[in-house]
Amino acid sequence: MSAPAQRTPADLTQAAATPAPARVIVIGTGLIGTSVALALRPRGVAVWLADSDPAAARLAADIGAGTVLPGDVPAGPPPGGPADVAVLAVPPQAVAPTLARAQAAGLARWYTDVASVKTLPVRQAQAAGCDMASFVPGHPLSGRERSGPAAARADLFLGRPWVICPDPPAPAAGLRAIAALARTCGAEPAEVTAAEHDRWVALVSHAPHVLSAAMAARLADASDGALSLAGQGLRDVTRIAAGDTGLWTQILSANAVPVADVLAAVAADLAAVAEALADTGPYPGTGAGPGTSSSPGPGGGPDLKVLAALLEQGGAGVARIPGKRGAPARAEAAVQVVIPDRPGELARLFQAAGEAGVNIEDIGIEHSPGLPVGVAELTVHPEAVGRLTEALAANGWPVRR
Amino acid sequence: MSAPAQRTPADLTQAAATPAPARVIVIGTGLIGTSVALALRPRGVAVWLADSDPAAARLAADIGAGTVLPGDVPAGPPPGGPADVAVLAVPPQAVAPTLARAQAAGLARWYTDVASVKTLPVRQAQAAGCDMASFVPGHPLSGRERSGPAAARADLFLGRPWVICPDPPAPAAGLRAIAALARTCGAEPAEVTAAEHDRWVALVSHAPHVLSAAMAARLADASDGALSLAGQGLRDVTRIAAGDTGLWTQILSANAVPVADVLAAVAADLAAVAEALADTGPYPGTGAGPGTSSSPGPGGGPDLKVLAALLEQGGAGVARIPGKRGAPARAEAAVQVVIPDRPGELARLFQAAGEAGVNIEDIGIEHSPGLPVGVAELTVHPEAVGRLTEALAANGWPVRR
Repeated sequence: MSAPAQRTPADLTQAAATPAPARVIVIGTGLIGTSVALALRPRGVAVWLADSDPAAARLAADIGAGTVLPGDVPAGPPPGGPADVAVLAVPPQAVAPTLARAQAAGLARWYTDVASVKTLPVRQAQAAGCDMASFVPGHPLSGRERSGPAAARADLFLGRPWVICPDPPAPAAGLRAIAALARTCGAEPAEVTAAEHDRWVALVSHAPHVLSAAMAARLADASDGALSLAGQGLRDVTRIAAGDTGLWTQILSANAVPVADVLAAVAADLAAVAEALADTGPYPGTGAGPGTSSSPGPGGGPDLKVLAALLEQGGAGVARIPGKRGAPARAEAAVQVVIPDRPGELARLFQAAGEAGVNIEDIGIEHSPGLPVGVAELTVHPEAVGRLTEALAANGWPVRR
Repeated sequence: MSAPAQRTPADLTQAAATPAPARVIVIGTGLIGTSVALALRPRGVAVWLADSDPAAARLAADIGAGTVLPGDVPAGPPPGGPADVAVLAVPPQAVAPTLARAQAAGLARWYTDVASVKTLPVRQAQAAGCDMASFVPGHPLSGRERSGPAAARADLFLGRPWVICPDPPAPAAGLRAIAALARTCGAEPAEVTAAEHDRWVALVSHAPHVLSAAMAARLADASDGALSLAGQGLRDVTRIAAGDTGLWTQILSANAVPVADVLAAVAADLAAVAEALADTGPYPGTGAGPGTSSSPGPGGGPDLKVLAALLEQGGAGVARIPGKRGAPARAEAAVQVVIPDRPGELARLFQAAGEAGVNIEDIGIEHSPGLPVGVAELTVHPEAVGRLTEALAANGWPVRR
């Protein structure tokens, strides 16, 4: 794949002064819609909810996301008149028909969506005769493997990019309104064209999903013995393959050509490596081993360049991914503590840290089934490491940096 | 790929009574060798260390892994005579020459290696005229992205499988000795043939590594804008691509044919999906969109079956991966608690859980930079959920299942 022009999303700092929306309708109370609602409520935003599944809307309301309006798309605006923004949190192919009905009902001043593809909904909305002057497409770059309102979280968008694609350009006021919505949810709004967005997410989200699924698919018929050797690497590579199959089929088909471009390139790379490996013959260095390849090949020679080059390129690529949650990678330090696996031990540990005035930023526990101990890895600010280590050692914890 | 016969690694319970080795030489003080040494030392095992890089051996000794012997392969046994076991923790292609020299020097009663391929070292050792009656090949299924002695951990093998491949069969005493070594390191020994092992790790470790690298390689020339949209999914898929390129080139070429088989199958699946997606045309549902494919295709029709089938198969595959660290997937339940981000809060939380007699199996913290709260997700046995929820609610924690 040729390198796209180096471009970063446009800053929306000029929109920073725009106040948060006061009244928002969320149509579609799945993971994203309900999370938007949960993020808005503590900021004093009035939120109304609607979903084609009344039980989903009720569940979202029950966990504090807002007030249910009847109908999959409400027949009219909420009490008090049109909302500031209607958020269409529906699958990509449903955006245009939902937008048409929402606009016909006069639900809001501005309309946005959250679909993870942008060109398709825009084209479909145009084809459906929607009012493109009040529609500002968007995409918060957040997600989980779980779906539905019960998986929603108020903090889902914190520190994450929220792409806004006014394409064709919406009025500046609309762009500012959706940027304010994104900022109120804790996200970082960024303006990108729809075409660019779609190519970018094909690379960093959609194609990785298919790769993960393609690897996981090989495990469906694998032997129990092979699976018993699975480690963290396989788990990480295949984790996102557990996502919602129906939704992902929609997303991928809605961004078909950009995704196909990436997948075709990856498939070609993998096929080239497979061919190079098959050509090295099975057992280099044992003399003429029993080759299974049709051509014996040069036996561990130049063909490995293909493999080594791909691995090098992979190392270079992974080094370019920004730090956790899209934020700049910040300096953090890890302290490892061995802990007995029994009730109350973690309390003692955190008590000691708390008394030493150390704030634990993150924690991971490696717990080994069948063994009486685990290892807790505590992430803290670097300047707190000495204080934490001393406090834990003073309380009898075996600590390792 | 056709399904291999359903076979699980042979139990080595008959070896459970064999005592831990008393004296061990570790040749190669990288990540694995040093971790073996660190795991053995607290069990009272005398450990000697050697490495072709004297600085690496010294560093391993400095962090408590054992006593350095001179030379990349020591010229003779340690003080007191041959060790019980010599562990050859060197790259796959170095196993046979190292074994030949170690056996010539009479370093130990039994020899084992830790290479992640097994057929190649065995064939090369046979070709090099090694004594196959004292060589019991092995492979602890553990690793990290970091390498070198400084990254070593005494707990690297805890609860992980340690495959032993007496192929051709070594004496039962040798098998028992290496099983005891594995168990002393906290691992679960399992007997598997070398050929089976190599096919299994090709599927669950080697091919996933190449897939991860192939995806990451696409990022090397990507725009900063695309990378700014990267989320946790991409990070997980590409994490293992950060591994040691030189070592992985060796590993993959040493297991060339089984890896090539898996990669060729995955490449074919990805190419088929790429073709199906390109054939759907870019914008289904907008009328005759500007197709870039040579044949316009049926427009979101039957071609998506290929994609949906792969995603379904992927979901089925990922569900078959056993639970954390190779243990059988067990029923666990998650409880989410919103916690203020200040010292002492987690202590209070764990105190309440401990007082209710609830053992926390795992914990994840979603902490939102800039916000005064985080969400702790506590993993517990399902029967403890009610008790935990009540205890936390009684102490004023907002809890969500």
